[in-house]
Amino acid sequence: MSATPDHYEFPPLDREALLRGLRAIVGEQNLLHSEEALRPYECDGLSAYRRLPQAVVLPATVAQVQEIMSLCHARQVPVVARGAGTGLSGGALPYGDGVLLSLARFNRILQIDRDNLTARVQPGVRNLAISEAVADLDLYYAPDPSSQIACSIGGNVAENAGGLHCLKYGLTVHNVLEVQVVTVDGELLRIGASSFDAPGYDLLAVMHGSEGMLGIVVEVLVKLLPRPEQARVLLAAFDEVVQAADAVGEIIAAGILPAGLEMMDNPAIRAAEDFVQAGYPVEAQAILLCELDGTEAEVTALADQVEAILEDCAATEVRSARDEDERARFWLGRKSAFPAVGRISPDYYCMDGTIPRSQLAHVLTRIQALSDEYGLRVVNVFHAGDGNLHPLILYDASQPGELERTEELGGKVLELCVQVGGTITGEHGVGMEKIDQMCVQFAAPELLQFHALKRAFDAHGLLNPGKAVPTLHRCAEFGAMHVHHGELAHPDIPRF
Amino acid sequence: MSATPDHYEFPPLDREALLRGLRAIVGEQNLLHSEEALRPYECDGLSAYRRLPQAVVLPATVAQVQEIMSLCHARQVPVVARGAGTGLSGGALPYGDGVLLSLARFNRILQIDRDNLTARVQPGVRNLAISEAVADLDLYYAPDPSSQIACSIGGNVAENAGGLHCLKYGLTVHNVLEVQVVTVDGELLRIGASSFDAPGYDLLAVMHGSEGMLGIVVEVLVKLLPRPEQARVLLAAFDEVVQAADAVGEIIAAGILPAGLEMMDNPAIRAAEDFVQAGYPVEAQAILLCELDGTEAEVTALADQVEAILEDCAATEVRSARDEDERARFWLGRKSAFPAVGRISPDYYCMDGTIPRSQLAHVLTRIQALSDEYGLRVVNVFHAGDGNLHPLILYDASQPGELERTEELGGKVLELCVQVGGTITGEHGVGMEKIDQMCVQFAAPELLQFHALKRAFDAHGLLNPGKAVPTLHRCAEFGAMHVHHGELAHPDIPRF
Repeated sequence: MSATPDHYEFPPLDREALLRGLRAIVGEQNLLHSEEALRPYECDGLSAYRRLPQAVVLPATVAQVQEIMSLCHARQVPVVARGAGTGLSGGALPYGDGVLLSLARFNRILQIDRDNLTARVQPGVRNLAISEAVADLDLYYAPDPSSQIACSIGGNVAENAGGLHCLKYGLTVHNVLEVQVVTVDGELLRIGASSFDAPGYDLLAVMHGSEGMLGIVVEVLVKLLPRPEQARVLLAAFDEVVQAADAVGEIIAAGILPAGLEMMDNPAIRAAEDFVQAGYPVEAQAILLCELDGTEAEVTALADQVEAILEDCAATEVRSARDEDERARFWLGRKSAFPAVGRISPDYYCMDGTIPRSQLAHVLTRIQALSDEYGLRVVNVFHAGDGNLHPLILYDASQPGELERTEELGGKVLELCVQVGGTITGEHGVGMEKIDQMCVQFAAPELLQFHALKRAFDAHGLLNPGKAVPTLHRCAEFGAMHVHHGELAHPDIPRF
Repeated sequence: MSATPDHYEFPPLDREALLRGLRAIVGEQNLLHSEEALRPYECDGLSAYRRLPQAVVLPATVAQVQEIMSLCHARQVPVVARGAGTGLSGGALPYGDGVLLSLARFNRILQIDRDNLTARVQPGVRNLAISEAVADLDLYYAPDPSSQIACSIGGNVAENAGGLHCLKYGLTVHNVLEVQVVTVDGELLRIGASSFDAPGYDLLAVMHGSEGMLGIVVEVLVKLLPRPEQARVLLAAFDEVVQAADAVGEIIAAGILPAGLEMMDNPAIRAAEDFVQAGYPVEAQAILLCELDGTEAEVTALADQVEAILEDCAATEVRSARDEDERARFWLGRKSAFPAVGRISPDYYCMDGTIPRSQLAHVLTRIQALSDEYGLRVVNVFHAGDGNLHPLILYDASQPGELERTEELGGKVLELCVQVGGTITGEHGVGMEKIDQMCVQFAAPELLQFHALKRAFDAHGLLNPGKAVPTLHRCAEFGAMHVHHGELAHPDIPRF
């Protein structure tokens, strides 16, 4: 933990030699290098950042990934891994003088083990494809990020993806038993165990959410769950946002762990209703969607209890989805909230932060005040049960200065999250997007420890350079810049 | 990941100067250095290994811990942290030329946050003391290792402790939100967040189960849970061990997550019954204890379902504890199983391994065969739901060669766990006890990665030297030794 360099420099790139080496491994048909062919890979879901790599390589076997990493390590060429490219924080943005390694061809489900309730899959397999493959067995894979139709398991591991049901069923890290990882120099690591817990340092958890900075995931053993006998959704309407926030706390305090517990404010309700006719009460200032699952008797008992709590918390209306069709419509409204907001504003900026649950009402009040102050509308949609906020700031990029005001307001919201004991990202990762906010979240000792851990996997910083963890130099510049504007905290002051 | 040293050497120790330095930090009254005063610290719960440290130091503040670490770091003196000393794998065994740092005076509960369901505690607080402190609020802290009356939270973090209820409520890592850690050079790290997930590499998970090798935990923020409205225990008896094993799989496959699911074989049943009169059926070849908790309606519904499964699996008897008193007696038998076995054998060796649930029946059959082969009785008591075995090998240390045969049989059992896809330790840690078995569990690339991670926290190897992760040199010797005997696998061959 002595002072050590926290950034890296790479030798000049010999592009032709690199391409020859890659071609020898995967063949010309699996190597992209013309500008036209590279273009689709210039960004991920955060399209504000775009950059072309030197090459895109598409290996199909673990041995090829090992050879690619050995080659790039020997030549000191940076490598950025890419799954489905649905990430929202720029984690898969290519490095200009580097190789983009796509796991798209790793798309096979290798084994389904019904007795142990596991599936062994390649990293390019889509999240939803696992549940589809085991539906006949009445099993499913629990984490369900909104992008689950497209996003891949390897990317889920890299971002430690969550979803609507992570309140009860956990994040990706809680649903993965083993990963196989190719290291920066081409070694293969087998991490975790097919049983409950593994000895040694918890490398499995370290790989989750490491955003491609520590190794290339080439195989994943996921847990499967028996599909609950029943799932029921309650919709509760409130005259005041703080009442809905309080109800969330009361449900949890009663010892009930809903499968999902989501909240939307009035603008979100209206936008979603206009878009998909979910059947939401458009006069309500807030709604909660509470899903309960389990055996039929269990669900019935829990639903009665939750209804009583919601009524005690001054819900003006509590509705239980009458059938599977209505349940699907209730969720469709929630899942369509982002595109629905896209219809009412030229542009919007989707934030992602977490707060302790008890701070919900306070934080919502403060966000409203900030919205008024900046003259920018904010729509709130979030995973209330686990305190994961997704405020959407509405703006018009064609109006001079609006984007800048939006980013400033966004920064204030994240700062607010940190101030109340929360974090700058719940499930979208840091990537490029929030690298400066990491300076607000963490002080120098933690950042130095992150860099030390990074070096333990990647001494030369070849994996996904410049992402996820800022250099202290960058934090100093960021701190200085904001001291200049008199706005943001210096990285050395309060974090917890 | 290039070849790097994986063991450490320390400069000669100047004991008098070290004692002067420590005295200046904590005062003479909190520094032990006479042989008599050091004696109680010579071992932890694994008393087969004993060693006196140069000094025992008992700081009371975080600042003192920081100063002690700075001093020892400057002098390159190894430090072993110790909680309650209840560990079963020798993790707190002192280093001869080092300091033992006791966290015994860090025994305060700092804050109970009812709204966020958390408690901020010092590491020396006993596990059970947390639940006692929040009992009035109808809350509790879930992980419940058998030593919970004595073991401390800091030790629970270091070993990632589990317990009877970890099947449903998770290990320590799943119940801790934040830790504060003093690094080897005296820095203070704040790791985790008081909300759902934290950005950056998952240092929180890495600290869990790291056995004092990465830093000194000085504060812990734990989750509290509302106490379930009801808990009911079912006891099922079987004529054959494999029937009980099958029933475990069927319960889980039905999507039921019991709070606890424990199994005992006939010798364990008899020993426990003789000792505490739990009311067990002594003719049964195996019993299962299945605890269901939740709301009353939920428990009733689940209990009906579990009873039906148990009967389908040929249980000869299924009993539901009629009242809290009978429920307590059912569990008392299980919790007393180890001392009960102590009454029927001069000595016993408690193993700890994990296996995939589907392998239960196979592994039990193999253990019986090994028991016959070695002429040593084996009693089986275990956390069946999560595949965590605790075979107890009965022996008589006064009989020449029996201890050695016992250790050999123990090694075979752990090897068997690894062969079927399990691990060499479920919840007792590696410490000194299983350091050689780590060579069977992992191959060189993983061990090298562990050492690299260790160096990222502790470049000179001052924290708890010689524990948890073997040097490659040690594995080579161990492999060679066992090749000589023709018994154990070489570290480079099958692990998963």
